Amino acid sequence: MKLFSFWRSLASFRVRIALNLKNLPTEVIFVDLDADAHRTEAYRKINPQMALPALVTDDGAVLFQSLAIIDYLDETHPAPPLLPSDPLGRARVRGLALIVACEGHPLLTPRVRRYLDRELDLRDSQQNAWRRHWTVETLVALEGHLAGHKATGTFCHGDQPGLADICLVGHVTAAINQQISLSPWPTIKRIHEAAMALPAFAKAHPAAQLDTPEAMRAK
Amino acid sequence: MKLFSFWRSLASFRVRIALNLKNLPTEVIFVDLDADAHRTEAYRKINPQMALPALVTDDGAVLFQSLAIIDYLDETHPAPPLLPSDPLGRARVRGLALIVACEGHPLLTPRVRRYLDRELDLRDSQQNAWRRHWTVETLVALEGHLAGHKATGTFCHGDQPGLADICLVGHVTAAINQQISLSPWPTIKRIHEAAMALPAFAKAHPAAQLDTPEAMRAK
Repeated sequence: MKLFSFWRSLASFRVRIALNLKNLPTEVIFVDLDADAHRTEAYRKINPQMALPALVTDDGAVLFQSLAIIDYLDETHPAPPLLPSDPLGRARVRGLALIVACEGHPLLTPRVRRYLDRELDLRDSQQNAWRRHWTVETLVALEGHLAGHKATGTFCHGDQPGLADICLVGHVTAAINQQISLSPWPTIKRIHEAAMALPAFAKAHPAAQLDTPEAMRAK
Repeated sequence: MKLFSFWRSLASFRVRIALNLKNLPTEVIFVDLDADAHRTEAYRKINPQMALPALVTDDGAVLFQSLAIIDYLDETHPAPPLLPSDPLGRARVRGLALIVACEGHPLLTPRVRRYLDRELDLRDSQQNAWRRHWTVETLVALEGHLAGHKATGTFCHGDQPGLADICLVGHVTAAINQQISLSPWPTIKRIHEAAMALPAFAKAHPAAQLDTPEAMRAK
């Protein structure tokens, strides 16, 4: 399989974690968002949406959208599972993942930042306030669903990491990048630490990729 | 089951279509977003995220996030299926649905419009340009994936309606509300017409709900 990825892309981060958890060897092809490499004709042929990540199977099928890719990986390589076996548990984990993927992350993407910058000409302080607002709103929503829920364990759902944790760590990474303290959301803080202690998560982190710029690498 | 819904909510629209396609009787509880009914303590206890829709099962379990709810309905009431049976087909349908749910819709929600209005104090023309920009970008991405793809049929994937069509019609509804002509995207236009000709879709439309204001009802 080939993964089209960019070190800083939080959606790519999600798929990298899933591939690591399932121990699937993958050729990684770097698409430099900062150089607009995702807008080239070559990449548009792979993913007409011109978004990252994309996964190309050994048969040449192109998969797009990180959550759809992870579902595919979970269906075709079931061990270890990234979703619970019961429908209610699956719905909870999917719901938690979608809070990040459909509510938090879309407002923080480079294309939105570009619009705020170029079309709306917002000041830096307004752009920072925008990012902080949506990042915090998603943290509040996640903590509200996680704290005190009987299904919450070491991880978002029980004691094995899964799809919800994959999305949670990406969102927490965005929060940490903004120097947002996690202390108001202790359940998220605890789960993030538990997940990032696992090599499958740590090796997938934006600061640890082969295309990570030297200045952004974990010290 | 009980569905917490609002006539205009496009995420509620998705779940209403799925319930209709599967012919599942549901008690609908109206949550008036315009009156901030989703921000009350009573609704916060049901969904800490204070977002619509939410589905409460007969056993009292609360499901949230429209795509997670639809997945649950599809797993627990498999006929008719809303996803293909093969993993690659499922990944394609999920990916198309997520283009709408993770890229288009999040930028058009009331809470984002509220931020643009109250925090950024944007003029109406700027707010309209924002909505049009993200609506069109998503239409372009969808058409790019649908047009000429061998799996595209009467509907997004083959000749039976499913999850991707459910998301597509919601997005097209947002486009139509903005008087955006669909002529640049003929595949989307055709699929939208085929889907809305089905009673399960038509009865779920925002203009046809019991809580739809008289002025907004389909004539």
